Amino acid sequence: MKVEIIAAATTKFGELWHRSPRDLAKEAVAGALIQAKINAKEIKALFVGNMLSSSLGGQDHLGAFFAEELKMTVPAMKIEGACASGGLAIHAGVMAVNSGLYDKVLVLGVEKMTDHKPEEVAQALMGAGSDMEREAGATFPALYALMARAHMDKYGTSEEELASVAVKNHYHASLNSHAQFRNTITVEQVLRSSMIASPLKLLDCSPITDGAAAVILTNNKKPVPTGRGGQITKSKKVINIIASAVATDTLGLAERKDLTTIYATVEASEKAYKEANIIPKEVDVAEVHDCFTIAEIIAMEDLGFFPKGQAGKAIKEGKTKLGKGSPVVNTSGGLKASGHPVGATGVKQIVEIYRQLKGIAGKQQVEGAKIGLTHNVGGSGATAVIHILRAE
Amino acid sequence: MKVEIIAAATTKFGELWHRSPRDLAKEAVAGALIQAKINAKEIKALFVGNMLSSSLGGQDHLGAFFAEELKMTVPAMKIEGACASGGLAIHAGVMAVNSGLYDKVLVLGVEKMTDHKPEEVAQALMGAGSDMEREAGATFPALYALMARAHMDKYGTSEEELASVAVKNHYHASLNSHAQFRNTITVEQVLRSSMIASPLKLLDCSPITDGAAAVILTNNKKPVPTGRGGQITKSKKVINIIASAVATDTLGLAERKDLTTIYATVEASEKAYKEANIIPKEVDVAEVHDCFTIAEIIAMEDLGFFPKGQAGKAIKEGKTKLGKGSPVVNTSGGLKASGHPVGATGVKQIVEIYRQLKGIAGKQQVEGAKIGLTHNVGGSGATAVIHILRAE
Repeated sequence: MKVEIIAAATTKFGELWHRSPRDLAKEAVAGALIQAKINAKEIKALFVGNMLSSSLGGQDHLGAFFAEELKMTVPAMKIEGACASGGLAIHAGVMAVNSGLYDKVLVLGVEKMTDHKPEEVAQALMGAGSDMEREAGATFPALYALMARAHMDKYGTSEEELASVAVKNHYHASLNSHAQFRNTITVEQVLRSSMIASPLKLLDCSPITDGAAAVILTNNKKPVPTGRGGQITKSKKVINIIASAVATDTLGLAERKDLTTIYATVEASEKAYKEANIIPKEVDVAEVHDCFTIAEIIAMEDLGFFPKGQAGKAIKEGKTKLGKGSPVVNTSGGLKASGHPVGATGVKQIVEIYRQLKGIAGKQQVEGAKIGLTHNVGGSGATAVIHILRAE
Repeated sequence: MKVEIIAAATTKFGELWHRSPRDLAKEAVAGALIQAKINAKEIKALFVGNMLSSSLGGQDHLGAFFAEELKMTVPAMKIEGACASGGLAIHAGVMAVNSGLYDKVLVLGVEKMTDHKPEEVAQALMGAGSDMEREAGATFPALYALMARAHMDKYGTSEEELASVAVKNHYHASLNSHAQFRNTITVEQVLRSSMIASPLKLLDCSPITDGAAAVILTNNKKPVPTGRGGQITKSKKVINIIASAVATDTLGLAERKDLTTIYATVEASEKAYKEANIIPKEVDVAEVHDCFTIAEIIAMEDLGFFPKGQAGKAIKEGKTKLGKGSPVVNTSGGLKASGHPVGATGVKQIVEIYRQLKGIAGKQQVEGAKIGLTHNVGGSGATAVIHILRAE
């Protein structure tokens, strides 16, 4: 399997009160088309990752909706898998290109969350959970708090270690002009922020975000000329998706054997490493699904970057931070600080890794990054999507 | 492109007050697995076609939801494209199998509509329309009524001709044990039924329906043994999908040049005929998207079965009716009489054509049917999905 990414762009993420989903989509797609130096007419199919437009906005038929807006009368469909909708849309794009049915496809992730009351958004997001969790009145902070508490009990993970995830990701976001939160924070600030669902505090949680991201995939074997000036050498690199894997687990936490691991992440990543023929140590840069700080710690372990129970300490020691870490994790700022427009997140992760491998990530650049990984999760781990990218 | 269908099953369609989406999905999938004589563990990926679970039920993450219920921990995603969700899910399944990523996939279409007030359902369905149409208070009967009026004005299509679509489809449904309405009706009954949106009357409209349908697709080249007793000879036939095509148009009617044609149908079917290397005349049996009687008339013309303006007369003369028609259209009873559980419809169409080509359609059997076509539409024609199947 080998699919080339020829363009990848995002809008700024944030509380974009003056922007509509249409605006956001158009900006992200225009950015990608300009990068790829192609006309919209060359796109053969459109895959839209989105979770909430139906439950919050009553708008279905998003494939045709955005196809019309983008003036592309191409086959179009919406792909939904809760917060993993973006990653699944990329997976669908990879299938489309590999199938030979479409040689060039656009994957668009878009979510507009701030037009609705936070309580409505929280309720709509629970559409990703199990019936029992919803009936019990659980919200996602509560579910991840249970996971955090279990991890603390089993491995001695501390609240400071949780906080250090947020501190690192805010630092990375401070370098990212498109991030929602560009302020650096301290461990003390995280620990003193309002309690949301013990042990998770406000600054352990990713925000509600508007944003869009777009990626163009192709099976075209010709290298596409991009970049100019000083970036010519770097930009000649071809960025390929060399693995795309999805795994599924129970919707609810109650049905799982262990709350300190997300089995879908383990299964999907093992499959992806095998497909890419690499080991975790070879990953230079990764975007992982840190919807809550505990999620990044669990992901680091489940992805094989650190043994179980040791990721918290490693992150606190800066072992995944820009400048000295390996792999460097969430250079975009992650969901925590770059923002989490749910259906766009999985696509944005690909955009960030593309930029890293292409060598055009500016202040966020991980020097010499050749292999990157993205990890996108739906719900509390019922869906996990892993992509591995390589610069060639 | 060549994808084999090794199993195809539906639940009964109707107002199934005592059934949940889970029940319906399990029944359809169990039927398919028994037919294919395989274990659920052999399925490598799941594609769920559904439109309304999010807007009506607040349930997202349907891929993982049904994967869990079916005890399949496989990659899973929901595919949405309004009333074309089922057809698009089949298209995604075709891509998946052709991509080489998954050698055996399950496509499940499911919709539970009767748990909600009809007004809520009508509003949720408008999620498939344009903003302007929704703001104007239009419903789908109103939009198709505009198309009907335009067709009558341009071609002299009569209300009797519209009614004859419903009469034929109720007759076919009377032979289908899984259909929602099994009563035969007369042209007079249609003409005397309550006016919904002039010129469309109650019996010109498809109903609100619960139901599920499941299809198993594979790239397996080995013929799968199925059937028993007297059906052995017939059931040795291999049923392949030989074309899968999607086209997109504007969401709203106001943006289209002509209301008497659905351009997406024309475009997708031309692509599909080319891919299958056949002409319309070679189609023996077709399931088309008759959400309203006018929709079947327009589809007959757009699919190339009759010249523009002549389908109404042809249908009235019985030229698409079981026993003497060619192609025979909507042997299941169509959306009109078999029922229209929106996300399941496109999958059910494949089930019906599979049964026809396999020679196991019982009283509905079109003798000697070798080539079949399905036509699934989203909204008022923003999405059209065409599949062509052949017995080999």
